[in-house]
Amino acid sequence: MTARSMRQTTPTRWVLADGRELLFFDLPGRRCAPVRDRRPLPPRDTAQSELRFDRTTGEWVIIAALRQDRTYKPPADQCPLCPGPSGLTSEIPAPDYDVAVFENRFASLSGSGDTPLPESGGPPLVPRPGHGRCEVVCFSSAHTGSFADLPLPHARLVVEAWRHRTRDLSARPGIEQVFCFENRGDEIGVTLTHPHGQIYGYPYLTPHTAATLRQAAAHRAAHGTNLFADILERETAAGKRVIERTETFTAFVPFAARWPVEVHIYPNRPVHNLLDLDAAELDDFTALYHTVLRRLDRLYPEPLPYMAALHQYRDTDAQREGRFHAQVISTRRSATKLKYLASSESVMGAFINDVTPEALAATLRGLAT
Amino acid sequence: MTARSMRQTTPTRWVLADGRELLFFDLPGRRCAPVRDRRPLPPRDTAQSELRFDRTTGEWVIIAALRQDRTYKPPADQCPLCPGPSGLTSEIPAPDYDVAVFENRFASLSGSGDTPLPESGGPPLVPRPGHGRCEVVCFSSAHTGSFADLPLPHARLVVEAWRHRTRDLSARPGIEQVFCFENRGDEIGVTLTHPHGQIYGYPYLTPHTAATLRQAAAHRAAHGTNLFADILERETAAGKRVIERTETFTAFVPFAARWPVEVHIYPNRPVHNLLDLDAAELDDFTALYHTVLRRLDRLYPEPLPYMAALHQYRDTDAQREGRFHAQVISTRRSATKLKYLASSESVMGAFINDVTPEALAATLRGLAT
Repeated sequence: MTARSMRQTTPTRWVLADGRELLFFDLPGRRCAPVRDRRPLPPRDTAQSELRFDRTTGEWVIIAALRQDRTYKPPADQCPLCPGPSGLTSEIPAPDYDVAVFENRFASLSGSGDTPLPESGGPPLVPRPGHGRCEVVCFSSAHTGSFADLPLPHARLVVEAWRHRTRDLSARPGIEQVFCFENRGDEIGVTLTHPHGQIYGYPYLTPHTAATLRQAAAHRAAHGTNLFADILERETAAGKRVIERTETFTAFVPFAARWPVEVHIYPNRPVHNLLDLDAAELDDFTALYHTVLRRLDRLYPEPLPYMAALHQYRDTDAQREGRFHAQVISTRRSATKLKYLASSESVMGAFINDVTPEALAATLRGLAT
Repeated sequence: MTARSMRQTTPTRWVLADGRELLFFDLPGRRCAPVRDRRPLPPRDTAQSELRFDRTTGEWVIIAALRQDRTYKPPADQCPLCPGPSGLTSEIPAPDYDVAVFENRFASLSGSGDTPLPESGGPPLVPRPGHGRCEVVCFSSAHTGSFADLPLPHARLVVEAWRHRTRDLSARPGIEQVFCFENRGDEIGVTLTHPHGQIYGYPYLTPHTAATLRQAAAHRAAHGTNLFADILERETAAGKRVIERTETFTAFVPFAARWPVEVHIYPNRPVHNLLDLDAAELDDFTALYHTVLRRLDRLYPEPLPYMAALHQYRDTDAQREGRFHAQVISTRRSATKLKYLASSESVMGAFINDVTPEALAATLRGLAT
């Protein structure tokens, strides 16, 4: 590990008018100067969401009725993610910022969990309080643009913020999984266009992560090897779905892609999460992730609506077979058409993909970055 | 079982120009009179779709590139589901029909499977041929309207068609699961507005069905009772999520509903599928399903976009704990807003529902039918 990776990022901590936390991450040589949040915000709703266990699938569902009134496509001059130097107009009371992270005002999950959730759901038809954490990550103070438009050092600062939040939230009681992601585009239902991502601290292991860990455990039992390492080795050997491979990371379209656009980025050595990466690897990851998003934005005349996600695992007995990877997916199946998740996908979980993974990989390889 | 239920429905069988099957189901006293399909259709594409096993989730994915060119929102005078008395304009060459079922021309699954699919996916990165069946079920010859607008005897005929297709397709080699469903509305991505549903004969047990059977087996092992029977008993006792209960069926919003609109209809006695229902029960099911759809269409000023689905199981060792039920879901979360499946749902499978199931049930109980 290099000296640089040992450096602990220390964001500037601030508090919003209703008590929510706000963190500023600065580019080298810069220093944010927040002002007091003077908005007359109502006290935070202490009514938490509910967790309800679905016994037919064995999965938790979050019921968050309070979110129905969340901010919905405000005009650009009322964007709550643009800097608010007066302390009266924005979630980010400051003349400017580089990267800012704050607790979501319309959170599906908030508060801390005192007792662990019962594995099989506990008593039937009894909801549990929906504790956890929902954060908003503002990529830049500029209202337009996207992650792919950020200069690389700025993109690297976002990765650093993800890393900081992963460390911080993972240590909190009641948070089982930290999920850093970005929803981008009207077609994904995004209600604020200012470039931003989100972080969820779930009070349970999500169904997808639980499934991958079950599969990885079965793979270890059957073959004595790590599932993700084997996938990476085979995809690299096959080559036809690989988009780009660097010394430290590999970007590819998975063999059984569910979505018309789907790209995975695996580290070439086994790591569980962002915290396991050294400084050079974090630089490399940022560069490849950035390149992949730039290629994706060149697929069609309009920028691609997408969901970008980091899969992170902990170095515990239960999660040791998990391997860090990034995943970017889109519902756009052509320049003019979207894939809808209809009954086959939404009810039965049976995905039908109209796009061949090899064809997508070939197209993406051919695009400029 | 009554004499009436013993009656085997015998549809009129027809063949389209490219060899696809077409079946007509008639109302009592009516008899369809199909004509020759004289369209110069190209031979059916013998290139099947592919099944690819996703080792990270243990689930099959269908790759069906040929569907990219399927019929997309044709003008009303070129609707392929309206009757085509000339034999030149429609998938249904007949002056009129009551209910018609035909093989989808743009099928994600077609042909028959010679060998069973390997349970753990077989050799890595090797696709399997995507055999199975995709059918279109035209509810009525009228271009406008919906299932909820059908007179009850006509709705009952659609249920009879589902039942016939379930029996027929279940018996075919290589089909593991028969799924009758309806996608309705632009918001679900429906490309033809003529009232119709679909039937998929999957070559594998779908992920959702496999999950419910795992849960039901674990429930039996832990409690010695059937999971679905216990759910029905508890929901009936709680009452607050029940919409309507008849002598034979119960409609309710599930405790852990994933969708802003979600209604389940359970039979009051345990049955596996439509074939287990007697004639009176089929009448009752039709009436309650029809009533539920009519209530749903009164939720908002515009008819509800929805996905309606029948969960059916077989009376085999592996599926014996499964119980027939219908499920209707919608992504509409208010008169003007839709729920989008963004990263939490699409990547992690962690559902967040903004609507309280009890509030939805109360609203639906209060609506006229």
